[in-house]
Amino acid sequence: MSEAAYTAMWEKLNLDISAHDGLLEVLGKFYGDIYLSQQNRLTGMEYLDFVLSEVHGLRIKELQDAKVAGKKVIGTFCVFVPEELTLAANAVHVGLCSGADAGTEEAEKLVPRNTCALIKSFIGFKLARICPYTESCDVVVGETTCDGKKKAYEAFSKHVPMHIMEVPQTKTADATALFKSEVLRYKKMLEELTGTEITVENLKKSIAIVNAKRKALQRLARLRAADPAPISGRDALLINQVSFYDDPERFTQSINTLCDQIEERIAKNEGIAPAGTKRLLVSGCPMAVPNWKLPYVMESSNAVIVGEESCIGSRNVRDLVDESPDTLDGLMDAITERYMKIDCACFTPNNERMDNVERMAKELNADGVIHYALSFCQPYAHEAIKLDTVLSEKGIPMLSIETDYSMEDVEQLKTRVEAFVEMLD
Amino acid sequence: MSEAAYTAMWEKLNLDISAHDGLLEVLGKFYGDIYLSQQNRLTGMEYLDFVLSEVHGLRIKELQDAKVAGKKVIGTFCVFVPEELTLAANAVHVGLCSGADAGTEEAEKLVPRNTCALIKSFIGFKLARICPYTESCDVVVGETTCDGKKKAYEAFSKHVPMHIMEVPQTKTADATALFKSEVLRYKKMLEELTGTEITVENLKKSIAIVNAKRKALQRLARLRAADPAPISGRDALLINQVSFYDDPERFTQSINTLCDQIEERIAKNEGIAPAGTKRLLVSGCPMAVPNWKLPYVMESSNAVIVGEESCIGSRNVRDLVDESPDTLDGLMDAITERYMKIDCACFTPNNERMDNVERMAKELNADGVIHYALSFCQPYAHEAIKLDTVLSEKGIPMLSIETDYSMEDVEQLKTRVEAFVEMLD
Repeated sequence: MSEAAYTAMWEKLNLDISAHDGLLEVLGKFYGDIYLSQQNRLTGMEYLDFVLSEVHGLRIKELQDAKVAGKKVIGTFCVFVPEELTLAANAVHVGLCSGADAGTEEAEKLVPRNTCALIKSFIGFKLARICPYTESCDVVVGETTCDGKKKAYEAFSKHVPMHIMEVPQTKTADATALFKSEVLRYKKMLEELTGTEITVENLKKSIAIVNAKRKALQRLARLRAADPAPISGRDALLINQVSFYDDPERFTQSINTLCDQIEERIAKNEGIAPAGTKRLLVSGCPMAVPNWKLPYVMESSNAVIVGEESCIGSRNVRDLVDESPDTLDGLMDAITERYMKIDCACFTPNNERMDNVERMAKELNADGVIHYALSFCQPYAHEAIKLDTVLSEKGIPMLSIETDYSMEDVEQLKTRVEAFVEMLD
Repeated sequence: MSEAAYTAMWEKLNLDISAHDGLLEVLGKFYGDIYLSQQNRLTGMEYLDFVLSEVHGLRIKELQDAKVAGKKVIGTFCVFVPEELTLAANAVHVGLCSGADAGTEEAEKLVPRNTCALIKSFIGFKLARICPYTESCDVVVGETTCDGKKKAYEAFSKHVPMHIMEVPQTKTADATALFKSEVLRYKKMLEELTGTEITVENLKKSIAIVNAKRKALQRLARLRAADPAPISGRDALLINQVSFYDDPERFTQSINTLCDQIEERIAKNEGIAPAGTKRLLVSGCPMAVPNWKLPYVMESSNAVIVGEESCIGSRNVRDLVDESPDTLDGLMDAITERYMKIDCACFTPNNERMDNVERMAKELNADGVIHYALSFCQPYAHEAIKLDTVLSEKGIPMLSIETDYSMEDVEQLKTRVEAFVEMLD
């Protein structure tokens, strides 16, 4: 599509064209510096480069075409919203988490200053009218995973049509029953919105689609155990980020093609960094596009990232939905069970996350863990302290970082990460 | 009891005697400055002065005597833990929220710095071994009302035996069912701990005891609608604070006696401040002993406080448990229903709190509302913004204050409160 046609589309979505142009320019420059400057990238990454270059273009055009064809678009902020149900209802499922400061001043009129950058960002993107995804949504689904989001949605719902799902805080049978009732309520909302009944047939099909996507991402995750590292952490993060936006079947195919290339590369003992480069696992808060700051800092510090223990990473990918049930209730139970396995810091005590980080560090041959918490994210800040204790008992070094989306602390972060990498043996 | 006998008791509780002496000294001085300096106090406040002077003495002795007699002591941090069940199980129910900085440095090793003062305080009190209540507890009950507490309990539970109750985040039928299951789980824990079965008989009796306490506090709250104000906000806050510690039946009797005096005073058109003194409602986070900073500032600024829309205030007092059911399940439903009415900021959207603040402001003839949020308390910080919008639409002036337990901002607060009071018409 021509630039003029895109601008017309953005105008129709009521974007602030000048502010949006500014965002795309920064995004392009940032992507060039952090991504396109990499050496030895896999040719399969060209698909991701293309998707990202068209993130506000072709993909948005696809959403508009889908809407013209009668489909609904559902926006989400969290891995607890079952994509399987969205797809079964013949709707499009897109992640709206935002990874850049924008409209912060306006956002701080709706939420306290002591709110994490991710929340301020999605509110700011809406208020500044620069996110074509948010503007394309028929419904945005919020969830009660942290105080910040739970309460921010109250203000946000004055600006976008919202549906709130309650995510419980423990994993007892009664808490699981509450979550199942919320999954059923989400199903009902979708059916009413789309006019499409969710059946055993369409749900089994959509479960298979999402499982296939997760299996491709699991395959990618496993391949990163190789030394030399076959793919950069930045690229792997980008793939996980794009998994929240892209058409799931096309995406799965592209990632499997990329994994074929990675296997060839591993067979030839090649990688994006020399064998023996220090290997880091990054663990904690999600990094939404274009929040590539810390991965860039880490991979500019004589290290390579081998895994993301994060919602935009393993937390969204680890568990599959059981495809075997043949009744709707059986499938709803399978979905409930799968989502209740998520080791989000919203749960207490969430000891399974500690085990998962340790296992990932071992399986991926990581030399150390960098814990990443967004400033004012209380759940992950608490777990950083807990994880540090657990990992130090296991002899796994950990560095705890708290930061936001600003670029002011890049040099300071680099100094700390370099010092950490240097002391790894 | 002699000072030596008290010291022996505190030693037996493994308190740090020297640090504890320091705390009592500060508390005594603080109480003298803020409470005993007041003019025209009701003689009925002598009971409260006595209780507070013996807060770590006689009341602790009573707890120890109860323990010797086979009773268990249950500590709580939150109005969601049903005192009715604790009493029915023949146990003692005490609030542990703490209102002073102590052991902060040690606490900040267990929880992030960006944690509210109340949480750091109860952890610090434990780590510094200066709280005889915490040390007297057989079980401490935590709850999932905010991210800060929910995650802090994970660390705290390494230091004290804990039971965690899940409080849901919405008020749907399914969320209420989850809370009922948690109420039943609390009942079971109590029965196992105490060896006392909770029956219709003992539960009805304890419901009546707690209802009577709440009715006395409701009576006190209603009497404060009078102008001139018959009692200071500081004194009323103290009464609500002591309601979490004291023997409930003795306390109820004393407060009813005090209310008799207040009625006499109102009949004579007398008060603690001249008629026409500006009247303020304080709304927001709980103020635990000895967190009297803001009330002191407010009442030193040509104003009188006429109500506390807070957990240590109306939120703990407004609703009674239905005493009519004659089955255990009926009573458990009545308890569940009563506690699910609480308008805590942990719920979303919690619009009933907005209505309750507005109604209180009107019923108590308040000229304005001061919203109080502890720094880093996300739920109340969000609701401060929401409440400001709601009240300004109703023409009720509001000042939003965020502070902690330090005394550094007293002068700054005084300037802001004075300016706010001055502009009230």
